[in-house]
Amino acid sequence: MYMNLERYAPNNLKRPSKGMINVHPIQRGGILTEEARKILEEWSDGYSVCDLCFEGRVDLIKTPPIAEFKKDVAEFLNMDDVRFTAGARHAKFVIMSGIKNGSVVLDSLAHYTSYIAAELNELKVYEVPNSGYPEFKIEPEKYAETFEKVKEETGSYPSLALLTHVDYRYGNVTDAKEIGKICRDYNIPLILNTAYSSGIMEIDGRKLYADFIVGSGHKSWAATAPIGILATNFDYTDKIFRKSKLRGEWSGRAFTKKETSFFGCSPVYGLPIMTLMASFPRVVERVKKWDEEIKKARYFVRKMEEIEGVQLVGERPKNHTLMHFEAPTFHMIAKKHKKRGYFLYHELKRRGIVGVHPGMTKNFKINTYGLTWEEIEKVINSFKEIAENYGVEVED
Amino acid sequence: MYMNLERYAPNNLKRPSKGMINVHPIQRGGILTEEARKILEEWSDGYSVCDLCFEGRVDLIKTPPIAEFKKDVAEFLNMDDVRFTAGARHAKFVIMSGIKNGSVVLDSLAHYTSYIAAELNELKVYEVPNSGYPEFKIEPEKYAETFEKVKEETGSYPSLALLTHVDYRYGNVTDAKEIGKICRDYNIPLILNTAYSSGIMEIDGRKLYADFIVGSGHKSWAATAPIGILATNFDYTDKIFRKSKLRGEWSGRAFTKKETSFFGCSPVYGLPIMTLMASFPRVVERVKKWDEEIKKARYFVRKMEEIEGVQLVGERPKNHTLMHFEAPTFHMIAKKHKKRGYFLYHELKRRGIVGVHPGMTKNFKINTYGLTWEEIEKVINSFKEIAENYGVEVED
Repeated sequence: MYMNLERYAPNNLKRPSKGMINVHPIQRGGILTEEARKILEEWSDGYSVCDLCFEGRVDLIKTPPIAEFKKDVAEFLNMDDVRFTAGARHAKFVIMSGIKNGSVVLDSLAHYTSYIAAELNELKVYEVPNSGYPEFKIEPEKYAETFEKVKEETGSYPSLALLTHVDYRYGNVTDAKEIGKICRDYNIPLILNTAYSSGIMEIDGRKLYADFIVGSGHKSWAATAPIGILATNFDYTDKIFRKSKLRGEWSGRAFTKKETSFFGCSPVYGLPIMTLMASFPRVVERVKKWDEEIKKARYFVRKMEEIEGVQLVGERPKNHTLMHFEAPTFHMIAKKHKKRGYFLYHELKRRGIVGVHPGMTKNFKINTYGLTWEEIEKVINSFKEIAENYGVEVED
Repeated sequence: MYMNLERYAPNNLKRPSKGMINVHPIQRGGILTEEARKILEEWSDGYSVCDLCFEGRVDLIKTPPIAEFKKDVAEFLNMDDVRFTAGARHAKFVIMSGIKNGSVVLDSLAHYTSYIAAELNELKVYEVPNSGYPEFKIEPEKYAETFEKVKEETGSYPSLALLTHVDYRYGNVTDAKEIGKICRDYNIPLILNTAYSSGIMEIDGRKLYADFIVGSGHKSWAATAPIGILATNFDYTDKIFRKSKLRGEWSGRAFTKKETSFFGCSPVYGLPIMTLMASFPRVVERVKKWDEEIKKARYFVRKMEEIEGVQLVGERPKNHTLMHFEAPTFHMIAKKHKKRGYFLYHELKRRGIVGVHPGMTKNFKINTYGLTWEEIEKVINSFKEIAENYGVEVED
């Protein structure tokens, strides 16, 4: 063997962003709570939770109280029933695997995993157009138009609709309720992908007319990866949580308690489910403080736009903490800089800030969720300082 | 809201087995190494690893050295290429999703997730019979017989074969090489499920004629759940690691780097991949010490069988640390005990030993992997003491 095992020594596996302000768009909502950190070591071995599994499925375990937790998460989202999955992507796969016929209509800002869940289940994908630059908005009535288009092209209405409640590119918050209503009118079940909303914003599935709510524990519920949340209503539980019907032709073995699309028992046993649970009380609290997060986000935008050329892309005013800027002035610097586009990444890192994609200057994304006001100021001042150092004008 | 959030407080989420000797059949190989524990806190936030993802797939990340690690794991298993998955169950799903036609032949001791992966991909399942009580062995030639049977019944040979290298019921080690040869002769690709072998025993995929090796990080590679290992040869990489071909009909968006059956990018980003990597040097070492584990296991069997009525079920001599006992004498006690079958669980727990399924006495399973000789003695002495206390004879 010629493996260099030394590179896997703990000293060589340090997290480069440790101790820094991390504004990476996908990281803010997944930072563990203190409570989750407390139980980390204890439940870290393999699938520790299965010590206590007596009914063959992780969501039925009574100690720790996962069976109760499942109900509480359903209540929190105002839906009937919940399962945990190997991420939101797995949750979308599970739902589509229960439909598996016809086509799915999704917003053109959907995450790639929404497209891929459809591809894997051989559903034809139709996109709801967005309004394009600079706001890239998804207008509810476009869903109805797209349903009609599908009907025209294929002879039937789509079997499923998906809306990305908050998209990963611009952090736009779509009018989920209006789109939910349209889907109800058409009798087309709606998946609401809340990877960037549930866990940080209040979500009431019933009010939004969602048939399925998909959430991401590691993105927005302060849990270790991977864990997704799949909530639905009783209309769909039989179909989506369907159980194995197979019987061994020689042995007669059957697995009637196992849920097929979850691979029998969803692989979240161990830290993912335990950290999700330990963080839950804080998550229930924090969603009520969303207004403060918006206040910080809007302040951040205002201050960033004091830098010459820097401008928010996506809806105005900002209704979410994930934001997308264009910065032609930074792009001009990059063109002449010996580090090219990487200069911004390095300048920020030198100031203790990570998460802006290395190499990006013309456009970049930032998530301010959960930053303190002091951290907000530090990030703004760093950007301003960098701009000034390179001769870009900054208002005051 | 009427949720009782207090039950999720860290103090109420303690691990009951903490500090005890855990002989649970699925837990021994997943206990974290010291090295993995060292990096736990640092990488615990959400999908921490994605801070450093610049190519859109976790297995391509260079810092931490996941891209290199992937190669090292392939070398370790003597296969060409590797991916990480949301558990061995997901790995089996991925492979079958790339085949998706015809039938699969699997051993009748296969884990339920092998059956369910087939069910989810609509493959018809045929079982290779085992020899039944008391050894439950899978004889290699039965694979050929079953292939012929499938050919007779369906008109074609199966599209896939699966062998559970070590089964979860009896811990029998099958003759993978002989079965591999048969599959090669028939030109039927073979999945070798090593959930209970790779990571604790040496596995050489090439020598065993395996086309696919599936492993479980949380079961046998000292990693946090969920993480599976999928290794294959270049013959199959295009098919099994196939990339997304979808294109958004309105937007033109495409995801050509994303691997479809892995949900685009496998959800192991964060602790699962980091702990697997941090434990790897130790895993590479420990597989070489398998002989010592067998020595302990055989000693354990011999001593347990000194208790009247207690007898190993499964192959003899024992070639693995996972073992299945029948104990009609304990069952007789249970019938008269006020705690019924739970008495054994409670008696063991009182002595600091957990992992025997609560309520089981007539048959129970134990895994001795990684127990020290002192712990082995303690477990044996506890069983003997319990037996004697209830008037069951114990040889000396």
